[in-house]
Amino acid sequence: MTHKLIRIQRVSEPVPAHSRPVMISVAGDSAAGKTTLTKGLAQVIGLERVAVIGVDDYHRYDRQERKGLPFTALHPDCNYVDIMEQHLQLLATGQPILKPVYDHGSGRLTRPELIEPKEFVIVEGLLPLHTRLARACFDVTIYLDPPENIRRQWKIDRDTQGRGYTADQVVDELRRREQESAAFIRPQRRFADIIIRFSPVTGREDPPNTPLSAELVLRPTIRHPDLTKILVASEPRAIHLKLGRDEDGRPVDTLHIHGYVPQEESQVVKKAIWTLLGIDSGDPPGILGDLGEGRSEPLAITQLLLLYQLMAAAEPASAGRLLPGGP
Amino acid sequence: MTHKLIRIQRVSEPVPAHSRPVMISVAGDSAAGKTTLTKGLAQVIGLERVAVIGVDDYHRYDRQERKGLPFTALHPDCNYVDIMEQHLQLLATGQPILKPVYDHGSGRLTRPELIEPKEFVIVEGLLPLHTRLARACFDVTIYLDPPENIRRQWKIDRDTQGRGYTADQVVDELRRREQESAAFIRPQRRFADIIIRFSPVTGREDPPNTPLSAELVLRPTIRHPDLTKILVASEPRAIHLKLGRDEDGRPVDTLHIHGYVPQEESQVVKKAIWTLLGIDSGDPPGILGDLGEGRSEPLAITQLLLLYQLMAAAEPASAGRLLPGGP
Repeated sequence: MTHKLIRIQRVSEPVPAHSRPVMISVAGDSAAGKTTLTKGLAQVIGLERVAVIGVDDYHRYDRQERKGLPFTALHPDCNYVDIMEQHLQLLATGQPILKPVYDHGSGRLTRPELIEPKEFVIVEGLLPLHTRLARACFDVTIYLDPPENIRRQWKIDRDTQGRGYTADQVVDELRRREQESAAFIRPQRRFADIIIRFSPVTGREDPPNTPLSAELVLRPTIRHPDLTKILVASEPRAIHLKLGRDEDGRPVDTLHIHGYVPQEESQVVKKAIWTLLGIDSGDPPGILGDLGEGRSEPLAITQLLLLYQLMAAAEPASAGRLLPGGP
Repeated sequence: MTHKLIRIQRVSEPVPAHSRPVMISVAGDSAAGKTTLTKGLAQVIGLERVAVIGVDDYHRYDRQERKGLPFTALHPDCNYVDIMEQHLQLLATGQPILKPVYDHGSGRLTRPELIEPKEFVIVEGLLPLHTRLARACFDVTIYLDPPENIRRQWKIDRDTQGRGYTADQVVDELRRREQESAAFIRPQRRFADIIIRFSPVTGREDPPNTPLSAELVLRPTIRHPDLTKILVASEPRAIHLKLGRDEDGRPVDTLHIHGYVPQEESQVVKKAIWTLLGIDSGDPPGILGDLGEGRSEPLAITQLLLLYQLMAAAEPASAGRLLPGGP
């Protein structure tokens, strides 16, 4: 029956190479900070040029149905992983999808929505890096890896405020999820090009409202901007790059950006990365680092480094051209 | 960015040829009799081996939203035709889909459902033959073409009984739809391998409850069973095959099966087609021709001819082996 495949191929429109979006995944456990990270990024690129996909929409069961199941929403069996893979392939090859929709407020699966392929696709959620086929769809892969005590507090805050749970229910849910988190979520860390950890610096007594510091493991699986030059030239005190080995023994760079970094010091580094994007004029957009309430320089620099990767994947030779305000 | 395509292909599981389903489409206007035709067919093959897809599930707008639109549910712009094409391609190549669901009762779009590829896929609805790419996905294409006055009555009966409309509302809706029916639904007739018309025979005064007669235009676009031999041998009086030209001048066979056909005469023809399927033993299943209330020999023979095509597409050399009860 290969005749049918040939018939389909003969009448299919060829997809021009430039219409295939650049795809980045942001994986991480529940309340790891995925939305905070991706929001500023999408706004700088321009919301009309970015599709943001939450792969938690691929839940196989709604909240009510999950109550009778021996596993939680974190388990691959609780998700249409094969359909997620299929949709990622379709998006990666420039085709639209009819994406399922999980309503986090009501806990119900509702009417699906059309997602047209755009220049950039940001895919965030619990399991975007779970399978080999899903990973093959991405140009850049990110894993968010906050310390567990911080993530717990974030999850309690968010789920009691926006999703109708009590604090006790969230704590109970965290306990139920722990085993699956260890089995399915955290192993995705090793497939990430960049691992991001926001946390307070141990041993420091920063004043309240000091933003969290960022620690970025930069794996040589993709080409990062040469930060050694930037940091040697500007001699920052609160931003460091350290060569070392990752948990698995592989060589990595780790970039530390302290939460107390002075604005002028951060600005020099941000401006240098901005220039690497091929944009000589103007300052990096103020939306970078925005926390809703207040702002964070470590977040801004993190977002700029991701922006660099997206632009490089879109057009390796002259990344900055693609950004509004670029030459 | 072809590297991403290559990466995806390298890690994709190859689809074995035998897992690609045989696909048949049954196109036709609203209430043309699509469900009545396909139900018996699916039951004979075995419900566990058949997926039945209604492409009206690909409505872009729900009933409430359509009220403000300048077109009806028949218009391609009122449907996700590109997603329908995509899903048909996926099914035709043996892949599962997450199909949208339109609830005809409430008129709302709801939670999508997983459709796993099975051996046979029956696709029925308003627009399955609308595009070239959709048509390329099918092994056999059917168009249901009842006389307009009969279809109107069927639609009034069904929509007032099962979908919460009044008769006046249905008549009004039929008027609103007429132009789009002419523009988008009826043109699909010319892409069908078999065109089926159930209607009373003009000029006859059959007793009440006589089933409608069937007129089947058999286009030489697929290989039909050689009915000349069957009909010469059995000398039926209420079943005729006539060579002629279709509306567009192309040569076609037209098979007439009168509603009053005696059971014994019909049985000979049914048995002959059943034997052509490679099944020597047993009679054709009694579910063929079932109307819910009563039964119809013209419907039974029509379903058998479609069954023949499905089996031939599945395994041209020895079709009957695939049927339960086959040798």
